[in-house]
Amino acid sequence: MFRHQKELQFEVKVDRPDPMLARQVQEVLGGQFGEMTVMMQYLFQGFNCRGEEKYKDMLMDIGTEEIGHVEMLCSLISQLLDGASPEDQAEAAKDPATAAIMGGINPQHLLVSGLGGLPTNSNGVPWNGSYIVASGNLLADMRSNLHAESQGRLQVARLYHMTKDEGVRATFRKMLARDRYHQYQWMAAISELEEKNGVVVPASFPPEAEMESQSEAYEFWNLSEGEESSDGPWATGSAPDGTGEFVYVAKPVPKGQIPNPKIPGAELHHDLDGKAVLK
Amino acid sequence: MFRHQKELQFEVKVDRPDPMLARQVQEVLGGQFGEMTVMMQYLFQGFNCRGEEKYKDMLMDIGTEEIGHVEMLCSLISQLLDGASPEDQAEAAKDPATAAIMGGINPQHLLVSGLGGLPTNSNGVPWNGSYIVASGNLLADMRSNLHAESQGRLQVARLYHMTKDEGVRATFRKMLARDRYHQYQWMAAISELEEKNGVVVPASFPPEAEMESQSEAYEFWNLSEGEESSDGPWATGSAPDGTGEFVYVAKPVPKGQIPNPKIPGAELHHDLDGKAVLK
Amino acid sequence: MFRHQKELQFEVKVDRPDPMLARQVQEVLGGQFGEMTVMMQYLFQGFNCRGEEKYKDMLMDIGTEEIGHVEMLCSLISQLLDGASPEDQAEAAKDPATAAIMGGINPQHLLVSGLGGLPTNSNGVPWNGSYIVASGNLLADMRSNLHAESQGRLQVARLYHMTKDEGVRATFRKMLARDRYHQYQWMAAISELEEKNGVVVPASFPPEAEMESQSEAYEFWNLSEGEESSDGPWATGSAPDGTGEFVYVAKPVPKGQIPNPKIPGAELHHDLDGKAVLK
Amino acid sequence: MFRHQKELQFEVKVDRPDPMLARQVQEVLGGQFGEMTVMMQYLFQGFNCRGEEKYKDMLMDIGTEEIGHVEMLCSLISQLLDGASPEDQAEAAKDPATAAIMGGINPQHLLVSGLGGLPTNSNGVPWNGSYIVASGNLLADMRSNLHAESQGRLQVARLYHMTKDEGVRATFRKMLARDRYHQYQWMAAISELEEKNGVVVPASFPPEAEMESQSEAYEFWNLSEGEESSDGPWATGSAPDGTGEFVYVAKPVPKGQIPNPKIPGAELHHDLDGKAVLK
Amino acid sequence: MFRHQKELQFEVKVDRPDPMLARQVQEVLGGQFGEMTVMMQYLFQGFNCRGEEKYKDMLMDIGTEEIGHVEMLCSLISQLLDGASPEDQAEAAKDPATAAIMGGINPQHLLVSGLGGLPTNSNGVPWNGSYIVASGNLLADMRSNLHAESQGRLQVARLYHMTKDEGVRATFRKMLARDRYHQYQWMAAISELEEKNGVVVPASFPPEAEMESQSEAYEFWNLSEGEESSDGPWATGSAPDGTGEFVYVAKPVPKGQIPNPKIPGAELHHDLDGKAVLK
Amino acid sequence: MFRHQKELQFEVKVDRPDPMLARQVQEVLGGQFGEMTVMMQYLFQGFNCRGEEKYKDMLMDIGTEEIGHVEMLCSLISQLLDGASPEDQAEAAKDPATAAIMGGINPQHLLVSGLGGLPTNSNGVPWNGSYIVASGNLLADMRSNLHAESQGRLQVARLYHMTKDEGVRATFRKMLARDRYHQYQWMAAISELEEKNGVVVPASFPPEAEMESQSEAYEFWNLSEGEESSDGPWATGSAPDGTGEFVYVAKPVPKGQIPNPKIPGAELHHDLDGKAVLK
Repeated sequence: MFRHQKELQFEVKVDRPDPMLARQVQEVLGGQFGEMTVMMQYLFQGFNCRGEEKYKDMLMDIGTEEIGHVEMLCSLISQLLDGASPEDQAEAAKDPATAAIMGGINPQHLLVSGLGGLPTNSNGVPWNGSYIVASGNLLADMRSNLHAESQGRLQVARLYHMTKDEGVRATFRKMLARDRYHQYQWMAAISELEEKNGVVVPASFPPEAEMESQSEAYEFWNLSEGEESSDGPWATGSAPDGTGEFVYVAKPVPKGQIPNPKIPGAELHHDLDGKAVLK
Repeated sequence: MFRHQKELQFEVKVDRPDPMLARQVQEVLGGQFGEMTVMMQYLFQGFNCRGEEKYKDMLMDIGTEEIGHVEMLCSLISQLLDGASPEDQAEAAKDPATAAIMGGINPQHLLVSGLGGLPTNSNGVPWNGSYIVASGNLLADMRSNLHAESQGRLQVARLYHMTKDEGVRATFRKMLARDRYHQYQWMAAISELEEKNGVVVPASFPPEAEMESQSEAYEFWNLSEGEESSDGPWATGSAPDGTGEFVYVAKPVPKGQIPNPKIPGAELHHDLDGKAVLK
Repeated sequence: MFRHQKELQFEVKVDRPDPMLARQVQEVLGGQFGEMTVMMQYLFQGFNCRGEEKYKDMLMDIGTEEIGHVEMLCSLISQLLDGASPEDQAEAAKDPATAAIMGGINPQHLLVSGLGGLPTNSNGVPWNGSYIVASGNLLADMRSNLHAESQGRLQVARLYHMTKDEGVRATFRKMLARDRYHQYQWMAAISELEEKNGVVVPASFPPEAEMESQSEAYEFWNLSEGEESSDGPWATGSAPDGTGEFVYVAKPVPKGQIPNPKIPGAELHHDLDGKAVLK
Repeated sequence: MFRHQKELQFEVKVDRPDPMLARQVQEVLGGQFGEMTVMMQYLFQGFNCRGEEKYKDMLMDIGTEEIGHVEMLCSLISQLLDGASPEDQAEAAKDPATAAIMGGINPQHLLVSGLGGLPTNSNGVPWNGSYIVASGNLLADMRSNLHAESQGRLQVARLYHMTKDEGVRATFRKMLARDRYHQYQWMAAISELEEKNGVVVPASFPPEAEMESQSEAYEFWNLSEGEESSDGPWATGSAPDGTGEFVYVAKPVPKGQIPNPKIPGAELHHDLDGKAVLK
Repeated sequence: MFRHQKELQFEVKVDRPDPMLARQVQEVLGGQFGEMTVMMQYLFQGFNCRGEEKYKDMLMDIGTEEIGHVEMLCSLISQLLDGASPEDQAEAAKDPATAAIMGGINPQHLLVSGLGGLPTNSNGVPWNGSYIVASGNLLADMRSNLHAESQGRLQVARLYHMTKDEGVRATFRKMLARDRYHQYQWMAAISELEEKNGVVVPASFPPEAEMESQSEAYEFWNLSEGEESSDGPWATGSAPDGTGEFVYVAKPVPKGQIPNPKIPGAELHHDLDGKAVLK
Repeated sequence: MFRHQKELQFEVKVDRPDPMLARQVQEVLGGQFGEMTVMMQYLFQGFNCRGEEKYKDMLMDIGTEEIGHVEMLCSLISQLLDGASPEDQAEAAKDPATAAIMGGINPQHLLVSGLGGLPTNSNGVPWNGSYIVASGNLLADMRSNLHAESQGRLQVARLYHMTKDEGVRATFRKMLARDRYHQYQWMAAISELEEKNGVVVPASFPPEAEMESQSEAYEFWNLSEGEESSDGPWATGSAPDGTGEFVYVAKPVPKGQIPNPKIPGAELHHDLDGKAVLK
C-alpha cells in the first residue's frame, strides 16, 4: 500500500514559461526511457519479486521514489506551459521569433491536457507497457535497470543544453544526480549477483555439452567486410568468466543446409499449382 | 550493402510439427527481446555509429549475424506449422488432447501467414520500433545490448523446457551458445569503454558542483517500509568509481515545497469559477 | 446497411488555408475523443446491442450521424491544406512568419495524404480501436458516451480560439451545438436507466454480503497527506442511492498481510540460489 | 512524494493456482479499464490539477489507493501462476482436461515475466497512455472517472463468475466494493460541479448565438430507419438544464452543399491529368 | 451524410454458437485486412478525393457498402458467442473436448464486449489507422485496394475451411463473392488509369535524366546467392511500358563510398573521447 | 545467412545540413511505406516462401537490396542532422528564419538518437510489424508489393520538391529509379502468376455455385447518391477474366432480415431487466 505526501522530492520552479521545452521534456516523462518507464519497471519488478527480501525492498524503495519523479516532471511541464493559452499564442504570433517557438508547441498540451503533462513522449506517442520488463531473473532485470538509467541520464544531459532557464536546470541537476546514483546502485547490485551466480544469464542453464552447444559459445563471426572488429577484448583473450578462449572467425561459413519447406495443404490457398483442389 | 547466402547459419530441423510451440517461439522472433529486436538494434547502432571504426565494424558484424537468426527462426516456425492446415485441424479435433494443442494455435498462423513466421510476439502483438535504441553513446547502448542478450537467453532457456523435440532443442542449443557469446562480447566492450571514460553515462557530463547536484548523487532513499535494503553494496561503501561514499537515508524527507500552479486563461475552459469569461 | 448522400450535414467552407490549423484539427478527427471515436463507438454499441429496440435505434441514429461528421472534418482539413504544396511552401519560406506557420505543418499531410485528412490525432498517432468501448451494459456505455462528448466539446471549444477564420468557426459552432445536444441526449438516457436499475454498474451484482464486501463500499481512504478531501459530498452524507452512509477514514491502515511468494521451479531460471538444478 | 508500506490494502490469497484465470485477470490489471488505467488517470489528474485544493487532494488520495490495487493484482496473478512452470506443464499435459487449461495459459507469463503480472491486458496487448485522460476540466474528467469505474466494476463482476476459487472471490469482493464506492464518489463530485457550473462541458463556452449555433443544440436527427428512438427523454421534453426543448427530426435533410475540392499542385503528384507538369 | 437501414445486406444466421470461431472471425472484422480496413480506407479515399467525380462516387459507393459489412460481421460474431457466458462455460468445462474449444475463447469477448464483436484482430490487437492509406494518387490507392481485397478474400477462403457450420459458410459465400467482385472492380479501374497515365506511379514524375536516374531504372540486382531469379519476365525483356530493357546484374557491385560521419558536438554526449568538453 | 559490405549501394552525400528535412525523410525510412517496410516485407515473404525456387530467390534478392536502402537513408539523415546539436541550435535561434527551421526539428533526433536515423515515421510513430504482410499466396503478396512500391515512389517524388539540395536530390533520383524498377518487377511477376492461375485471389477457391455465391460476384451496388459511378469499366462489360458480365445495381435493396440477438445470461451483467438474477 502507498501513501502520498504533498511536498515534492526536490524543488521545481521554472524561471519563465517555454512551451517548446515543455514538449521536449515529455521525452523524459513519458518516453522509452522516461520516468514513467523506470517507475513502472521497478514497481513491477518489486511486486513480482520472489526470493531474498532485500532485493524486493530495494526495488520498492526506488520504484516509490520514481512515482515522485513523475510528479516532479508534471509540475515542471505545467509551469513551462503557463502562458501558452490560445489567447497568449495569438499575441505571441505577432513576433516571428516567438511565433517560431509557439509553432513548436505540442498541440495536445493545449487541446488534450489543458496545459498539463501528458503520458506520452516528445512526439506525442503514448507511453506503453512494452517499454518495461520484469522477468523474474534479477541479474537480467538489473542489467535492464542499469541501461535504462544510462539512457535516462544521457537524455537529461542533452536536455540540459536545450535551455538556459536556471530554474529548469536546477531540477535537471537533481535528476542527473539521482540518475548517477541509480547507475551506481545497479552496478553494485549487479556485482553482488555476478559474484554469487556467475556473469552469464541465466546462470542456471549450464554450459555443459548436452544442454548448450559449446563450440559456438566463444566465436566472433566476422560477417561485415573488414577486420577492424578483431581489435578488441571481445575478439581475443579469455571470456570474462574464464570458461573459454575467444576465437575470431575471420571467414565464417554457414553450417546449416538450405531449408526445404513443405507444400501446404490446399485449404491454405497458396495457389502453388494454379489448380483448385478443394474438397 | 548486404548479400544473402542460401544456407542457414546453423541447421534447423524439427522432429515433428507442433503449432502451440510455434506460437511460443514467436516470442523470441518478434517479441520485445526477440531476434528482430537485436537485429534492428545492432543495425541502427552500426548505421548511426560515429567515431572509432572498430566499434562500427563490430556492430555491423553482429547485426548482420542477427538477420540470419531471424531467417533461422522463420524456418523453425514454418516447420513447426507443417500439418496445421484447417483440414488437419479438423482431423485432430477428434482427439481431445490434440484438440487442446490445436486450440492453442495462433489463428494468424493460419489466416494471415499461411503457416509462416509473423513479425509479432507470442501473443500476436506486432514488433515495433520502440523496442530498440541507438543513442549515439556507445556505453549506454552496449549496456542496452547486454541487457537484451540477457533477457533473450533467459527466454530461450525457458523455451528449451517447453519441448522435448530434439530437433528444436538442437537449434536452441546454438542460440543459447550465441547468446552466451554475445553477453561476453558486450561485457568485454563495456569494460574497455568504462576504463576509457569512467562508469557513469554520460561521462562527458561531469560531476562538478555547478553542473550536477552532488549532494544527491550518493544517497539511497528508503521510501519503502523496512530497512532490508540497507544490506547491500549500494547502501554502504564507495561508489564503483570511488568518487564518493554511499549514504543510506533511512528516513528521507522531501526537499521541495508544495507546488502552486497558476489558474489558466479562460480560453482553456477549465471552468474553475463556473463563469464564462470569453471575449 | 448504409446509404450515402452527397451533401454534407452542415456547410463547411474555410475562408483561407492554414496548414498549422489543419494539423490541430486532426485531434478532433482522429484523436482519442475525435469524431472517428464517437462514430465507431456508437456503431459498435448499436451493432452489438441486445435488448430494447429503442436504444439500438438511437445508437444507430447517432452513430450514422457521426460518420457524416468524419466526412465534414475531412472536408475541412482538405480546404485548410489547399495551397500547402511544396512549391507554395518554398515560396512561403521566404517570409519568416509564414515559414513558422509552415514549419508547423504535419509532414504527413504532404507526403502521405497529399493534402487530405488522416486517420490520426494532432501528433500523427494513428487512431486505434482501444479508444472505444461497447460492453453490452447500457448504463456503463452511456456514461462512456457522455464522457466522450464532454471531452470532445471541450477540445472543439479550445480549437475555436486557435483560429480567427470565420468559415472554420462557423463549422465549429455547429459541432459545439451537436456536442451540447449529445451531452443532453446521454444524460437523459442515463437518467432513465438509473431510475430503472439503480445508479451502480452493474446493477445485477447486488450488494448482498456474500457477493460483495459491504464494509468497504462506503469508505473514503485518505491516503494523501492533508484532509482537504474531507470537504465534499463524497466524504460525508448518504450514498446517491441511499444504501449507506459515507465514512471518511482519515488514517487508513492496511488490512492484508505481507505476501509471501513461492520460489519458482528451476526451469524458469530465476537463478535465486545460484545453482543449476536442471534435469 | 510517495511512500510504500509492506502490507497490502486487502488480503490476497488464492486457494489454488489457475493459469487460465491468471490470463483473464490481466484484463483488470493492464486492460483499457484495469487498475493501471485508474491509477495513472487519477495521478495525472491530480498532478495537473489547478484550482481548488480539495479536488487535487481527493484525486491524490484515490490515485495513491490505486497504486496499491495494481500491487494487489500482481500478487493475485503471481499466486495463480504458482505451479505453472514448464515442468509442471509437461506433467499436466498428460491429462486432457488439465492440458486444455494449460493450453489457455498466456505464454508470456512463462517466457517474459517468469510467473509474474504483466503490464498488458488479457490478450497480451501492452497498456498504453491513450487509455487515460487528464484534460484540466474537472467535470469532463470526473465523467471519465465515473465511466472507468463503471466499466471496471462490470469486468470484475464478470470475472467473479469465471472462478469458484473462494480466495480469489474474496479479493474480487473487495474490489467490487471499492468500485462501488468510487462510482458513488464521482457521482457526488459530479453533482457538486454541475450545480456550480451547469451540466454542459465546458460551461465556459456559453450557448449565446454568436458563439454556438443554437438551432442545432436541441435536435435529435433520425438517421437510422424506424422511429423507435423517438420514445425516450432525449427526444421530447426539456433539456436537463432547461435551456431549451428537444425536437425529434424524423426526416432530417442535409444543410451543407456538395464540397468542391481544388486540384492540387503538380508537385503533389495526384496524376489527375496524366501529364507531367513539373518545373 | 449517411443513412442507416435496419436490414443487413445479406442474411447472417449461424447454425450453432462457436466461440473459438468467433475469435478467428475477428481477423476479417478488425484485422489488417478486415472489413474495418476496407471501410475506412475507401471512405477516407472518397472523402479526400479531388478530381473526376466518377471516382469519388465509386469510392463512396463501395465505402458505404463496407460499413454494412462491418455490421454483418458484428452480427455473425454475436451469434457465434451466444451461449458462451461464464455459466455455460463452467458447464462445458466438464467435457474435455468442449473445454478445449472454450479454452480457445477470446477472454475479451466475455469481459470487455459481453458477447459482441470487438474492433480488434483475431489476437485481440486493436485496429489502427496505419492499416489504411488515402494518398491522393488514384492509381497508387487502387493498387492498395486491389491488394487489400486479395488478402481479404484469401483470409475468408481460409476461414471457410475452419468451420462446417452451414449458416456461417453461407455468409462467407457472399463475402467471397463480393471480394471477387471488388477485385474485378479495382482491376478495371486500374486498367483505365494505366491507359490514361502510364503504369508507373506517379506518372507525373517523368523519367527524364535530370529528374530520375535512368541507369538504375531497369536493373535487377542479384544480391542473394544463386541465379534462379534470372528466370522470369522481370529479368529479361522490355519493361511493361516499353520504355527500356531489363538488365540482370548477376554480380552487382556497390556504387557509393564508405560514409564518413562527423563527430558531433560535446553537448550530445557521445563520449567519443572520454573527456568532458562542455562550456 | 547474410554478409555486409562497407560501401553503400549508391553515393549519399548532402550539400548542407537541414534538420527539418531529416524529420521529413523519416517517412520513407520508418513510415508505413518506408524502406523498413519493404525490407521486412520482402525478407519475410522470402523466408516463408514455399514452392518454386525462383520466386524465393527473387524475394531474397530484393529484400537484401532493401536492407541496404535502410542503411543509405540512415546515412542521409545523419548527414542532414550534422550541426543540429543544442549549441548550434542556440546560435541559430537568434535568426528568426533559421529558428523556424530549427523549431521543426524532431526532438528525438537530439534526445534519443543523438543525430542518427530513428525507426519511426516523420511524426515519430515507431515502425511496426503490422505494416507488412507475407501471406503465403504469391499473387496476393506481389499485389501488396506493387502497391508498396507505388506509395513509396509517390512519397519520394513528393519529398524531391521539398528540398533544393542537389546532394539529397541525387540520392532521391536513385531511389526513384529503383522504385520504378521495382514496380516493373512486381508487374511482370504478377502477369506471369495471373496467366498461370487466373486473376482472382485465391485462384484455388473456385467460383462454383456451392462454394461461392455467384449472383453477387459481378454486381456494383450504388449506395452513394448519384450514378456517376456507372461510367467506368467496373460497371459494364465483362469481368477481366471473362467469367461473367458486370451488373450496375442502381437501386440496391438489402437481402438480409433484421437480426434478432438473444438476451445473454445474467452473469454477463447486461442489466437488461434491472434485476439481479445471480445464483
